[in-house]
Amino acid sequence: MPEFDAVIRGGVVATASDTVTCDVGIVGGKVAMLGEALGPGAEEIDARAKLVLPGGIDSHVHIDQPSPETGALPATDFFSATVSAVCGGNTTVIPFVRQLKGQSMRQAVDDYHRRAEGKAVIDYAFHLIVADPTEQVLGQELPALVHDGHTSLKIYLTYDALKLTDYQVLDVLAFVRREGAFAMVHAENADSIKWLTERLLARGKTEPKYKGVAHAPPVEREAAHRAITLAEIADTPILIVHVATADAAEQLRWAQRRGLKVFGETCPQYLFLTGDELEKEGMEGAKCICAPPPGDRANQEALWRALEAGVFQVVSSDHAAFRFDDPKGKLIEGPKTPFNRITNGVPGIETRMPLLFSGGVQEGRIDLQRFVALTATNAAKMYGLYPRKGTIAVGADADIAVWDPDREVRISLDVLHDGMDYTPYEGMRVRGWPEITLARGEVVYKGGEFVGRRGRGAFLRCDRS
Amino acid sequence: MPEFDAVIRGGVVATASDTVTCDVGIVGGKVAMLGEALGPGAEEIDARAKLVLPGGIDSHVHIDQPSPETGALPATDFFSATVSAVCGGNTTVIPFVRQLKGQSMRQAVDDYHRRAEGKAVIDYAFHLIVADPTEQVLGQELPALVHDGHTSLKIYLTYDALKLTDYQVLDVLAFVRREGAFAMVHAENADSIKWLTERLLARGKTEPKYKGVAHAPPVEREAAHRAITLAEIADTPILIVHVATADAAEQLRWAQRRGLKVFGETCPQYLFLTGDELEKEGMEGAKCICAPPPGDRANQEALWRALEAGVFQVVSSDHAAFRFDDPKGKLIEGPKTPFNRITNGVPGIETRMPLLFSGGVQEGRIDLQRFVALTATNAAKMYGLYPRKGTIAVGADADIAVWDPDREVRISLDVLHDGMDYTPYEGMRVRGWPEITLARGEVVYKGGEFVGRRGRGAFLRCDRS
Amino acid sequence: MPEFDAVIRGGVVATASDTVTCDVGIVGGKVAMLGEALGPGAEEIDARAKLVLPGGIDSHVHIDQPSPETGALPATDFFSATVSAVCGGNTTVIPFVRQLKGQSMRQAVDDYHRRAEGKAVIDYAFHLIVADPTEQVLGQELPALVHDGHTSLKIYLTYDALKLTDYQVLDVLAFVRREGAFAMVHAENADSIKWLTERLLARGKTEPKYKGVAHAPPVEREAAHRAITLAEIADTPILIVHVATADAAEQLRWAQRRGLKVFGETCPQYLFLTGDELEKEGMEGAKCICAPPPGDRANQEALWRALEAGVFQVVSSDHAAFRFDDPKGKLIEGPKTPFNRITNGVPGIETRMPLLFSGGVQEGRIDLQRFVALTATNAAKMYGLYPRKGTIAVGADADIAVWDPDREVRISLDVLHDGMDYTPYEGMRVRGWPEITLARGEVVYKGGEFVGRRGRGAFLRCDRS
Amino acid sequence: MPEFDAVIRGGVVATASDTVTCDVGIVGGKVAMLGEALGPGAEEIDARAKLVLPGGIDSHVHIDQPSPETGALPATDFFSATVSAVCGGNTTVIPFVRQLKGQSMRQAVDDYHRRAEGKAVIDYAFHLIVADPTEQVLGQELPALVHDGHTSLKIYLTYDALKLTDYQVLDVLAFVRREGAFAMVHAENADSIKWLTERLLARGKTEPKYKGVAHAPPVEREAAHRAITLAEIADTPILIVHVATADAAEQLRWAQRRGLKVFGETCPQYLFLTGDELEKEGMEGAKCICAPPPGDRANQEALWRALEAGVFQVVSSDHAAFRFDDPKGKLIEGPKTPFNRITNGVPGIETRMPLLFSGGVQEGRIDLQRFVALTATNAAKMYGLYPRKGTIAVGADADIAVWDPDREVRISLDVLHDGMDYTPYEGMRVRGWPEITLARGEVVYKGGEFVGRRGRGAFLRCDRS
Repeated sequence: MPEFDAVIRGGVVATASDTVTCDVGIVGGKVAMLGEALGPGAEEIDARAKLVLPGGIDSHVHIDQPSPETGALPATDFFSATVSAVCGGNTTVIPFVRQLKGQSMRQAVDDYHRRAEGKAVIDYAFHLIVADPTEQVLGQELPALVHDGHTSLKIYLTYDALKLTDYQVLDVLAFVRREGAFAMVHAENADSIKWLTERLLARGKTEPKYKGVAHAPPVEREAAHRAITLAEIADTPILIVHVATADAAEQLRWAQRRGLKVFGETCPQYLFLTGDELEKEGMEGAKCICAPPPGDRANQEALWRALEAGVFQVVSSDHAAFRFDDPKGKLIEGPKTPFNRITNGVPGIETRMPLLFSGGVQEGRIDLQRFVALTATNAAKMYGLYPRKGTIAVGADADIAVWDPDREVRISLDVLHDGMDYTPYEGMRVRGWPEITLARGEVVYKGGEFVGRRGRGAFLRCDRS
Repeated sequence: MPEFDAVIRGGVVATASDTVTCDVGIVGGKVAMLGEALGPGAEEIDARAKLVLPGGIDSHVHIDQPSPETGALPATDFFSATVSAVCGGNTTVIPFVRQLKGQSMRQAVDDYHRRAEGKAVIDYAFHLIVADPTEQVLGQELPALVHDGHTSLKIYLTYDALKLTDYQVLDVLAFVRREGAFAMVHAENADSIKWLTERLLARGKTEPKYKGVAHAPPVEREAAHRAITLAEIADTPILIVHVATADAAEQLRWAQRRGLKVFGETCPQYLFLTGDELEKEGMEGAKCICAPPPGDRANQEALWRALEAGVFQVVSSDHAAFRFDDPKGKLIEGPKTPFNRITNGVPGIETRMPLLFSGGVQEGRIDLQRFVALTATNAAKMYGLYPRKGTIAVGADADIAVWDPDREVRISLDVLHDGMDYTPYEGMRVRGWPEITLARGEVVYKGGEFVGRRGRGAFLRCDRS
Repeated sequence: MPEFDAVIRGGVVATASDTVTCDVGIVGGKVAMLGEALGPGAEEIDARAKLVLPGGIDSHVHIDQPSPETGALPATDFFSATVSAVCGGNTTVIPFVRQLKGQSMRQAVDDYHRRAEGKAVIDYAFHLIVADPTEQVLGQELPALVHDGHTSLKIYLTYDALKLTDYQVLDVLAFVRREGAFAMVHAENADSIKWLTERLLARGKTEPKYKGVAHAPPVEREAAHRAITLAEIADTPILIVHVATADAAEQLRWAQRRGLKVFGETCPQYLFLTGDELEKEGMEGAKCICAPPPGDRANQEALWRALEAGVFQVVSSDHAAFRFDDPKGKLIEGPKTPFNRITNGVPGIETRMPLLFSGGVQEGRIDLQRFVALTATNAAKMYGLYPRKGTIAVGADADIAVWDPDREVRISLDVLHDGMDYTPYEGMRVRGWPEITLARGEVVYKGGEFVGRRGRGAFLRCDRS
Repeated sequence: MPEFDAVIRGGVVATASDTVTCDVGIVGGKVAMLGEALGPGAEEIDARAKLVLPGGIDSHVHIDQPSPETGALPATDFFSATVSAVCGGNTTVIPFVRQLKGQSMRQAVDDYHRRAEGKAVIDYAFHLIVADPTEQVLGQELPALVHDGHTSLKIYLTYDALKLTDYQVLDVLAFVRREGAFAMVHAENADSIKWLTERLLARGKTEPKYKGVAHAPPVEREAAHRAITLAEIADTPILIVHVATADAAEQLRWAQRRGLKVFGETCPQYLFLTGDELEKEGMEGAKCICAPPPGDRANQEALWRALEAGVFQVVSSDHAAFRFDDPKGKLIEGPKTPFNRITNGVPGIETRMPLLFSGGVQEGRIDLQRFVALTATNAAKMYGLYPRKGTIAVGADADIAVWDPDREVRISLDVLHDGMDYTPYEGMRVRGWPEITLARGEVVYKGGEFVGRRGRGAFLRCDRS
């Protein structure tokens, strides 16, 4: 009789601090044992010459969420997005519930739970976007929601539909501190973007490349500094999300050096793309439009150095998948859509880990431990999912990616599963790709395809900090 | 027949770069000649063993201006304030015209001209506080006003009655750039002050010392960083006024190092007072309430180091004189006035130069050249008054302070002329005091008293940059 | 029949990234299995409510090594020093082989191996102090020694007997790069110390407190900057050892931010002592004399902040135990020994982990993961002992400290085992103390006493990097 | 009867702080009067539409001084070098007396006085290069020499013939402090240069371009940091000369920000040349070999930013003129001279001011005041020549350059007067050139030619600080 439901045998098991060769014995969806020459498993997975990594946690993804500015409709729902995730080595996603101004937060939460249930193929938590922090919301709805495991709040300093005043930010951060919740901040200066955009449009400058002018580096830097200051005043940690500029990274470093608990997240679009993409002929550049947009090469290099130096704790995808050829997608106003009306967002849930592994670990910029920390462990700890998620350890969920470090893949649409009609990384060659993904001990990805079951994912309650 | 209207003879003449011993010959209110053994003057001023300095330009003073928050009435009008100025070695003041929201800027300008005319005893220019930068104001009124010599605009990031949105700031800065005007910024984060204040008051913390908590250093630092960023985006220089915190000074230094044209001003209240003053028994602390308030001793020391290192270009008084025992003065709500309702502002027009000379030059922190630059030359250049004002050079107005570097004075109310009922510097001993002040060649201060003529001051048109 | 030689049951197992509750099964001196409810062990160790930590690696200790300057004789040999180590939760030590100028390195190595063999109670590696990098040494002796597992070289920028010229430093670093070895640097400016010392002595300033003047912070900072530069030129990583000053830590941070591979080590004497100790009455101050000496309180606070911010990778003891009342100890020239002739060094092999646990983890400055990294994992990785040493993972040596996080101990001589007649930490209260230490699976410390076997420790060959 | 010996009429007179239009009346070689419409002068100089500037002080020039490394003989003696100087708008030079190890400093001083007397056409002071700071030198010779007006000492951290140990540096700096002298430091790390050079030569890399590798930026940075530290320990100001790298400039900035009195000098070769010059075909690159050599373009840009930000106080030429086609010049070992044997030094005494005026003032990087400060005033103050030299003020020597701001000149050998066979700036176009140079009131340069008298220059005693 098999001792384990499954054994992953002979692989090189990596955590955020260690790399050891051993077997992983799984029972009841959890890691039951780590050892050499473990007894037999009902399922035997040969991981020799492979890495055995904690499944990725993509902690910043937009799923089944229309664009707040253009109303564009996403290409993926909770089924297809999570399928794409597991095909990229992920085992957990944390998408967003979005409150709109005037809306009940509880209703928004219920709505997103309905969207996810029965569809998600891996476990998921939710961040709550707080767009209207009224007394009712902060005093009644949110305490109950935090109690129920929705401990992560996201706030915006930009977008008319979402942005908070500094006063509201302080209110939310004070709530976060009081309730043991956690705050993420989208840091861009709304007025500057608006002002620059109007002047560009007035001069007929509408092409995609002007996105980079309207979101010039000081725009993100200012908001980063402001967010840091408000967090300092409220005396609570924050995470600044999708940091795109060397300027903002400098602010993070400055804050961290002062001993402030300010965390940073960046994304593959900033580490692997540059503004050159936006300058491509015609509307091609629209494919890489996101907010903030990728900067220049020196900026990209500075972000890598910041990553190496420990300024960032999380690399997420900020997956927001809108089709290019879809009238309800990127180009909501047709082929002449001005840069400020192009739907923000790039797909990337499936390419995040391969890109970072290849460009980071294989290129010698970060070691394997840092890769694990950036793609899984740190997010699990930050969002209250640890030690259930984010590591390979006795008692943890058996969320594991068996990773072939030597497999070379040329990224193109046909190797991806996200239902999109383009990938911003088309043609890039990477070394390292997931071979098998296990979610709570079940093989859900193998042989390049999803082999799991629709709706098997469950909601994860996040712990308070 | 005398060759000169007046000759200042045998003094040590100092400019922002030089110190030489020579005579100064004055004709028609201007410096006509510098030389050794000049011919006779109708008036002969013996300056041997004395310094001959450019008269001070106090470029940040509130005269005949009620408090925008409390409505308190100032102790001094254009006569008494400028008398106090000359008794402190100054020969030019630049007070503020203040527009209120909804008000015509032109009307406000006319109003303040009326207040000054016939009263001011020395020349004056005006900064224009832009509180409502409508199309009308930016498109019609201000261009004409700039044309007429009102080239300096001041904007606020705080105070409900005055503060601009970031969008409006960008509009004003773009105007400044377009018209060759100049922008000063009061940099504090309004929402943070409001939020902190409400929480302090809710907990019954109303004493003066809580002013320092409500205006904690990050409050100024954030706004300084934001102002710098908006100026960077608008591509125009700015001056951040009355910098009170080491945190904000650090932002200035950071910006200057990046090559941004960001200037800084600080004031004696931050170099010579500390938050200890606010902690004095009873309401005594109210006397030193201003915004931002003085910080702690380490902060003060850091400001001195920044001054020495060239971070600041101007030391002004930010004179705002409200009596302590006057029901329409500091304590507008009586002896229990909570810290946020105490009228902001300290008097200082007369003590600015003696304090900085004594604490700066005599203590060896700055040299005489820097003293001249900080008190006169830099302001003249920045605000378009140079070379008419701000130096001792052929062709310049004969605005001169004959300064006794060795005179020791114990500051107290009875040696001052500002009509106040307190001075925040009561009891401080300084070394160095003006002996004679000449304004356009006329002796207006001598023997410790004003000896000039009411209303002799004239409006100065400032040049565009 | 027991499945394991020993099982540590029910403890909270911590690594440099993870904390999980599980059993640890040991076979043949190695960790064979991690799991819940492991089968029986021949020895059962109840670790419930205890931490199960990787045994400490004290990677900077002087054992059986006379003072290079005063010739003082140490209080401890390889037996007593390693006994003291295990009583403080350590399972590995890395002492120094010291070449003197003109001496063969091979002979020095052989000599120290003889001193250790048969005495050490835990495993040990050696750093080689290179004082005479002749062609013979760099070309023949050292390559062979590196091949045999002596991969870590230490060089000095101070001490007449040991210091290298910058040219020699470059030669050694080029060797290190070529051979995959590793370099540690004692960074102090020799000439400055000499010059300052001579001037102090000439003025009769001989008391212990003048040690801090002769080793003023710039002395270490300069040498740190120089070491960093030479490593940059030679293009090889270095570790700057026993960093004592905020000034030097600033240089580390600066280098790390530039992307240079510069590592930093600090010690409990800099985190828990200050220069106040040196100012104690009479010769009491001599007890805390080491080089560099502890700085002032602000310096100490800055070192803690640097530790929190990740500037340091290793906290070692720099154990150098010379008795106070021994004529061949600290005061080699008797009760009037001038500060520069007092034997450098403080004991600390046994107190290192309790101090850092109490002051770091219990005080909330670092988390448990960082503690493990600083006391064990990072040193193991840096010096080529990983994964054999430095973590608790399948296949690693079962070098483990079962740690009682709540045990309160008042440090004093009678709780220590280092054979000394004083401890610099006399009277300090700590929370957290080792309960059991296992070395390669054997219990060597328990119930407050050493229970292992003399000479059971073995030499560890270090891997090349 | 003329009132003045000469009057410079109607020019725009600039000092380090002021720009005014006035006449300059000269009597007895000094500025007697500044005024409008001065009385007649025996000589009338029309300066309308011209700038009237303090004559340049080139405070770092090597005249009649063989190369310390190669023994090459300079192209210019005190006559030709000072002629070249006045043709470039200079009125004072400060060359070097060089002691060699073992030599009496007094004898060296006497020797250089003999070289200058009867030849120099403008006034001169001397810096004393201290290569052998024995007790005799520091205790007897130098105090007397300082007393006689040789207050500026230069020390080297590189060159076998000149370099001091850190201990000796401290001795010299302590002397400087004690005697009110001043110290200049050539900051490069000797051992690094030697080590890198040997390895380059061993690999056959001998071309001029390898100079830049042997003197990589960290080489200067390290020595700059060390010099700063030694000055901090000795508690005395220093000037770091001919700063060539952004890395060293960063150290200066760091020190200045800490409040240390560390001054910086850079040179046109670093602001107008780059390492590209060294890469030219054949031995062409040798023409721009100096130590340190020019760096890359980013480095050059960083130096300009540092200049703008006030990091440097002096721009000197470091004139060291060795002919290219002379067997006793640059290529002392013939056309295959390896980079380390090429004589260091570029000519530049005549081009310094035009280059900085054109590239600095005309390009808008610095204003006219900064130009005056960098080329004359600051050096005069630093070296104890002020107010006799370095400004245009009553009582100062009438050392004046009448400058045509609009004259365009293409630099080439035939417009220069330095007796060289090349200029590193061949073909560069500048705007701004001296029209007339007056030295102590005498016109010595006019119409493109020297019109003064050989030997009219006098030795200047420098004041103590």
